[in-house]
Amino acid sequence: MMNNMLIGQSGGPTVAINASLSGAIWEAMRSGEVHEIYGARNGLQGILKKEIIDLKRSIQNEDDLALLKETPAMALGSCRFKLPDFPSDTYQKILNIFHEYEIGYFLYIGGNDSMDTVKKLSDYFLSIHEEIKVVGIPKTIDNDLLCTDHTPGFGSAAKYIATSVAEIACDSSVYDSPSVTIVEIMGRNAGWLTASASLARLTGCHAPHMIYLPEVVFDPVKFMIDLKKMRETVPHVLVAVSEGLKLQNGNYVADSEQNGLTDAFGHKYLSGIGKYLENLVREQMDCNVRSVNLNVLQRSSSYISSATDISEASQIGATALQFAVEGKTGVVAVIKRVSDSPYTVEYHCCEVGSIANLVKSVPKAWIASNGYDVTPEMIDYLKPLIVGEPNRHIKYGLPEFLSFNHVPAVTKAC
Amino acid sequence: MMNNMLIGQSGGPTVAINASLSGAIWEAMRSGEVHEIYGARNGLQGILKKEIIDLKRSIQNEDDLALLKETPAMALGSCRFKLPDFPSDTYQKILNIFHEYEIGYFLYIGGNDSMDTVKKLSDYFLSIHEEIKVVGIPKTIDNDLLCTDHTPGFGSAAKYIATSVAEIACDSSVYDSPSVTIVEIMGRNAGWLTASASLARLTGCHAPHMIYLPEVVFDPVKFMIDLKKMRETVPHVLVAVSEGLKLQNGNYVADSEQNGLTDAFGHKYLSGIGKYLENLVREQMDCNVRSVNLNVLQRSSSYISSATDISEASQIGATALQFAVEGKTGVVAVIKRVSDSPYTVEYHCCEVGSIANLVKSVPKAWIASNGYDVTPEMIDYLKPLIVGEPNRHIKYGLPEFLSFNHVPAVTKAC
Repeated sequence: MMNNMLIGQSGGPTVAINASLSGAIWEAMRSGEVHEIYGARNGLQGILKKEIIDLKRSIQNEDDLALLKETPAMALGSCRFKLPDFPSDTYQKILNIFHEYEIGYFLYIGGNDSMDTVKKLSDYFLSIHEEIKVVGIPKTIDNDLLCTDHTPGFGSAAKYIATSVAEIACDSSVYDSPSVTIVEIMGRNAGWLTASASLARLTGCHAPHMIYLPEVVFDPVKFMIDLKKMRETVPHVLVAVSEGLKLQNGNYVADSEQNGLTDAFGHKYLSGIGKYLENLVREQMDCNVRSVNLNVLQRSSSYISSATDISEASQIGATALQFAVEGKTGVVAVIKRVSDSPYTVEYHCCEVGSIANLVKSVPKAWIASNGYDVTPEMIDYLKPLIVGEPNRHIKYGLPEFLSFNHVPAVTKAC
Repeated sequence: MMNNMLIGQSGGPTVAINASLSGAIWEAMRSGEVHEIYGARNGLQGILKKEIIDLKRSIQNEDDLALLKETPAMALGSCRFKLPDFPSDTYQKILNIFHEYEIGYFLYIGGNDSMDTVKKLSDYFLSIHEEIKVVGIPKTIDNDLLCTDHTPGFGSAAKYIATSVAEIACDSSVYDSPSVTIVEIMGRNAGWLTASASLARLTGCHAPHMIYLPEVVFDPVKFMIDLKKMRETVPHVLVAVSEGLKLQNGNYVADSEQNGLTDAFGHKYLSGIGKYLENLVREQMDCNVRSVNLNVLQRSSSYISSATDISEASQIGATALQFAVEGKTGVVAVIKRVSDSPYTVEYHCCEVGSIANLVKSVPKAWIASNGYDVTPEMIDYLKPLIVGEPNRHIKYGLPEFLSFNHVPAVTKAC
């Protein structure tokens, strides 16, 4: 009887990815249709090495599951493993392992690359008339997946970015001498995260004053002209920039080839765009300049996550398991926004082929005509996603997290 | 009748400095001894320009005062103005302005440089038999002031650092390939902030694995040997480093002269120690390397502040006003720890001369013998300071702050 569930996590961390895991585990227990609940360490990579753990027995009680929901990054670990195109021995190998563990439902949480795995595996199982159901659970802070209103993980990252920008704006305006602050934000291919810096303005903060998305070609000369003009009326200018800004020639602005940075030994020096622009501004303007790279905390701060996001991430995990149990395969659970006010969503499924390997960019219509801001439509879209405080599990003043690090792999008699 | 109070803020921002302002305002209203409550914009600099605002009329109600208490950075603005040595015309100028505004009590919130102003002004007033009382309120995230168990602002920064290290550790351990993560922490002259990264271990996190304080001379060769050894047993090594690490020759490790970093045009490139060590490790070790600079959010994140710290900051502000009303001058309000468990403090005063311009370093006895960790005594000392969640004022999912930006200066008929 192949009715065990296997779930894995893949791609970059988010703060909501364990909430999807917790939602799927919850639904699997509740459904009465799933026998064992297995987790794969480091996604596909762990499956191939049979690094598979027993989640029912690793999670002691309701409190553990609630703690998992609020734990950032990936409790099961991740991988960047790309399934080779069919035919390849890997497919048969995976099938054998699935048979060994009697897997009937395989859920994979990941971004557009990971959905490629969902597509290939479900296509393979269908082609050999194998009953195993494969369902994708979207996650990415980048919000760049098609077919879903937004991605789990994005709302929390957006909240972290907007909150941090508001706090950095307070910090950067304490002196009366003029200043420029560059805030570097993730999102190499799409500007959703950088756009969410605009939400800082919702509670009276004037920052950010300029927002540069990767959807607009970056012109350093125009940037300096616009910045100098902004500085004439704004004493403390805060600029939000995407790490993925590109020049007209298609190169990343912060590319080390482009910057030509070298250390004392002539070795190439890897910088970020924030630091690069900080140095550019310092050379060309007479004011205090600082850059702040929000770095990995924007995707892993459980302290500043969005309750809306965590709740949706859990719900989409549960929904994915429901789809699998209903017999769907080769699909991804997605979020459909029904209404902005009150904010309401529904969970649907879509063919994985419409999502895998594709990127949803910020529409041109949501970028301001000056090229360095967003429109009110963007703010209306973003606003509901950051609402609600998380259930922080605090001990000694610090967040507590759930870890599966010391759980041994399940051993099967082969 | 000279019974108005004037309060100003000076030096770098902290998340607790407005709590001291709010505590002093509260106590001034409660005491019945203070007539008007004035705030100086940008500290001494604003006083000299008569940029003085009426705080009683800028704060509408109890909610505003509660909001001020949780607002990061400095609501009144700051300065880096150093009062010249006496004799100087500036003293007479300040005295005239104090007379004009009928100031009887002057409170100055700041670090060791700002306490120099408290000392000079109180000495001057005493020397001319002027009744104006001058009292200092300590603040600095660096925790490097003498005569006080710790400084307001430090506990919140310590909590931000420990929380961030725990979250970065989750993020950096999701892949099964080995990694090194360098976390750069503030504190140019003293290692208290960097030491507080150790608190991340209180809730089961193994990071940080190595902690480098500025009190210990940094040897890059030994660093690489120790790091490689650590990496043999720890897959994902997290290293906490102070921005103020110095080499044997006394130069900062991240000094641009030292690094010799130049851009394509041969201009000097300002880096930080985190980025510098990241590049060093990348050249010498075969693993993923990342650096994270916690930057200004460690001193301005109201979201991850310590309720203990905020409450003490408010109390020390109130106590400072009490000292002034009691007739004390040339003193600083300080915190004395009475007991670790239960954690109990008292507020005392000490002569400003024992604090001004001096630095309290981490004692050698609290640094581990390997040179890259802290002792259990340090953890016992730090632990109570980060306890308690702040009263977050949230609107649309974002923190709300109080601003005096649009309050006009008080005009006096001269």
